[in-house]
Amino acid sequence: MAVLRIFLLIVFLLAQTTCGLSSWFGKRSAAAKGNRWDVSPPRQVASLIGSADGKFSTSQFQPDPQDRRKKVVVLGGDGFCGWPTSLYLSERGHDVIIVDNLSRRDIDNELGTSSLTPIEPIDKRLQAWKEVTGRDIKFVNIDVKQHYQELVDLLKKEKPDSIVHFAEQRAAPYSMKGARQKRYTIDNNISGTHNVLCAIVDSGLDIHVVHLGTMGVYGYGTSGGEIPEGYIDVILPGGREGKILHPAYPGSLYHATKCLDALLFQFYNKNDGLRVTDLHQGIVWGTNTDQTLKDERLVNRFDYDGDYGTVLNRFLMQSALGIPLTVYGTGGQTRAFIHIRDTCRCIELALINPPKHGQPVEILNQVAETLRVRDLAEMIASKTGGRVAYLANPRQEAPENELEVSNRKFRILGLDPITLDEGLLEEVRQIAAKYSHRCKADSVMPKSFWNTRRAVDCLTQPVKETRYARAERQSPSGTPQKEQRSGARGR
Amino acid sequence: MAVLRIFLLIVFLLAQTTCGLSSWFGKRSAAAKGNRWDVSPPRQVASLIGSADGKFSTSQFQPDPQDRRKKVVVLGGDGFCGWPTSLYLSERGHDVIIVDNLSRRDIDNELGTSSLTPIEPIDKRLQAWKEVTGRDIKFVNIDVKQHYQELVDLLKKEKPDSIVHFAEQRAAPYSMKGARQKRYTIDNNISGTHNVLCAIVDSGLDIHVVHLGTMGVYGYGTSGGEIPEGYIDVILPGGREGKILHPAYPGSLYHATKCLDALLFQFYNKNDGLRVTDLHQGIVWGTNTDQTLKDERLVNRFDYDGDYGTVLNRFLMQSALGIPLTVYGTGGQTRAFIHIRDTCRCIELALINPPKHGQPVEILNQVAETLRVRDLAEMIASKTGGRVAYLANPRQEAPENELEVSNRKFRILGLDPITLDEGLLEEVRQIAAKYSHRCKADSVMPKSFWNTRRAVDCLTQPVKETRYARAERQSPSGTPQKEQRSGARGR
Repeated sequence: MAVLRIFLLIVFLLAQTTCGLSSWFGKRSAAAKGNRWDVSPPRQVASLIGSADGKFSTSQFQPDPQDRRKKVVVLGGDGFCGWPTSLYLSERGHDVIIVDNLSRRDIDNELGTSSLTPIEPIDKRLQAWKEVTGRDIKFVNIDVKQHYQELVDLLKKEKPDSIVHFAEQRAAPYSMKGARQKRYTIDNNISGTHNVLCAIVDSGLDIHVVHLGTMGVYGYGTSGGEIPEGYIDVILPGGREGKILHPAYPGSLYHATKCLDALLFQFYNKNDGLRVTDLHQGIVWGTNTDQTLKDERLVNRFDYDGDYGTVLNRFLMQSALGIPLTVYGTGGQTRAFIHIRDTCRCIELALINPPKHGQPVEILNQVAETLRVRDLAEMIASKTGGRVAYLANPRQEAPENELEVSNRKFRILGLDPITLDEGLLEEVRQIAAKYSHRCKADSVMPKSFWNTRRAVDCLTQPVKETRYARAERQSPSGTPQKEQRSGARGR
Repeated sequence: MAVLRIFLLIVFLLAQTTCGLSSWFGKRSAAAKGNRWDVSPPRQVASLIGSADGKFSTSQFQPDPQDRRKKVVVLGGDGFCGWPTSLYLSERGHDVIIVDNLSRRDIDNELGTSSLTPIEPIDKRLQAWKEVTGRDIKFVNIDVKQHYQELVDLLKKEKPDSIVHFAEQRAAPYSMKGARQKRYTIDNNISGTHNVLCAIVDSGLDIHVVHLGTMGVYGYGTSGGEIPEGYIDVILPGGREGKILHPAYPGSLYHATKCLDALLFQFYNKNDGLRVTDLHQGIVWGTNTDQTLKDERLVNRFDYDGDYGTVLNRFLMQSALGIPLTVYGTGGQTRAFIHIRDTCRCIELALINPPKHGQPVEILNQVAETLRVRDLAEMIASKTGGRVAYLANPRQEAPENELEVSNRKFRILGLDPITLDEGLLEEVRQIAAKYSHRCKADSVMPKSFWNTRRAVDCLTQPVKETRYARAERQSPSGTPQKEQRSGARGR
């Protein structure tokens, strides 16, 4: 058996060298690849990333070329990332079971918001997928935090190869909204993640876990150099060299849960030999994928409210509505981004390249590029002729930060990430415009404040606004042309 | 106000210099101080500790000499550390409110064990304290994990200066017993700690938190040098120097919860300015304090079972019963120890020396000395003439480790810790003997296994036993005399 494994690994490695990994792992879709417009990057785009220094190679992984089709339980498969990932994996030939308690829909009810795009009930979604592709995706309604024994029973019955774990409350502002939401985020995410790990040990099965983490675990502006993937080399007391988990500097309780998860992964890996891949993902933008575009009933969520709307999608929505793009503080925050199509691709790459038995937790940075929020807002406003409103920052965070991130491992595994692409930006803007009649414009404003001081700032400080003309022509340097910059004014 | 504070601080610092802190903070009890026998330390006692390199001073703290009597909520005040601490603080003039859900008593019921010493119901305990000292301690039955709003209401009503947080499941073996106990430990400890922090913010009060952590957060044998107090200096990616939380290497899920707590403290300190002191405590030994000795109804817990019995107390119990002292693996594990009397003193030192506003989480190592388990067993067996049984190790851990720990900060604050003291060892042995009729001898054996492999090892590997003669005379070097060493034999 061991000999067979080694032989297959050699075959795999040879194939890699001769064919290139991308031909194995699926090409980028034509829509994603083609820059339909000549895109000019925002000014001061932070350095793009991905040096290959040779310390890492695919030999750390244990892909099995004979069994590239996995049986996968997708926890949280009804959500913004989980749904398109489930469809992508299904289309790629994997056997997908979605486990979800539909909590994202419940939170919509709680907040009085909804996805801009109309989301069908889960059974209609899956029925549509069956009609369009002939493929079955099973759905089981389990709350992984509450229904532990049902989770264990499911694992024992289905014997999946892998679990993709999206089943966590995923919005930083929601996690800071108030005591109820803080407590829900901590309780749900930590107990849920722990239940998943405990259930795998309880089941006695050898199931690989792929977890969606966040770039935010590293903190912003604390490292001072390129952030490596998960671990750093340090000199420990006594002079011993050690490789340690990158220090955790969460910027919200949501981010904190991902840091706590990381310690649980480390423990279960060490104590029980669990194989875990933790993906530190950037902010996701975009809405649809080739799969969700197959039928209107398959459309993905588009969240634009102050709690769940991520920054780039929110800007595109505001731009489509002709309302000011709301930037927090100076907009000097640099963040990492990834397109939803790449999220799906990265998950599959992680699934079919599990870490070897006995390896520590594998951590990959799932990001395409880093961008400064202010530059992003100005770029979009200048393309479309709009305004950028600088609000007081509701978040307790550094007003400005640099960010350099390594995404070497995914590049080695064959990912050629989608970076800011005007075609894809326009695609999102068109969706925003198409469904604008469903938008509650006031829900775009921030409604969660990190602490009392930030809340007071937001309620008392004046809003500064800058107005841009539509950029019909690009300047030679690709820099957007400002029409006029208004002074401070109240709101 | 600020001028007054500075003036009082100067007075306080001068007083420190002239009188020595111990006279302010209470002297060690006579019983604790007097070495009634000439104690010979075990062989190979790991290096004692406490270099004062001058980086730390009491100016990091914000003691208020005008208000040294605190109103303190002791969460978990019915437990092994919480009870004697509550009495100690009460006797020292602080206003103590115990909050406890009595879960430790429930776990006794679950495991079919009980404290060797008979523990009165909480109301009788508090009535006895009132009778003996005239002092009131209030008791409120709240589960800090479940009854969040009651906790907030209590804080708003009582407006305490400080919370001492013992309200966590505290046994490593119990935390690894099975899925139910693993899940309980994670859910209870993390949600409980988070509720405490969230409730303080929710109450709008400025309450200092003193939390009982564990030396186990540092891992054993991973640092290679003296373990500093909570933080290490490292070079981060990009060459920037940084002070980071000591990397977490928990050895059980119980230990993992304390690592997760540490990240929550860091977050609430950064985001909300919460003042937190995290005490990384060694293994506690001993049973009674001057306060619990005042009346038999006040006696402290004595746990000796395989799950809750800590190693030194377990050895003393086995010695008193004349059964073999059970050592796991080679007994080469070096651990940090502290006497229960010092736990009480350290808590008060932490309470009356809160960190200044704006300071990061204050972390102190609450340990007196480090000892190798094997040496401890052999020392006790040789004193009393007994046997040491080497069992397979139920824990997933390194068979041998060195351990050096700094306890500089508590020494600077005036603690002169109790180290292995034959008088106190004998005191514990006498308690063990007195209540030996209440002992279920078989419950001393390990019943929780870290993983399947460890369980199989424990059930199949032979037990090695070593027999010692009673050490009537000390050898010149203080080394106990072995009488005979038996070979391996099964059980």
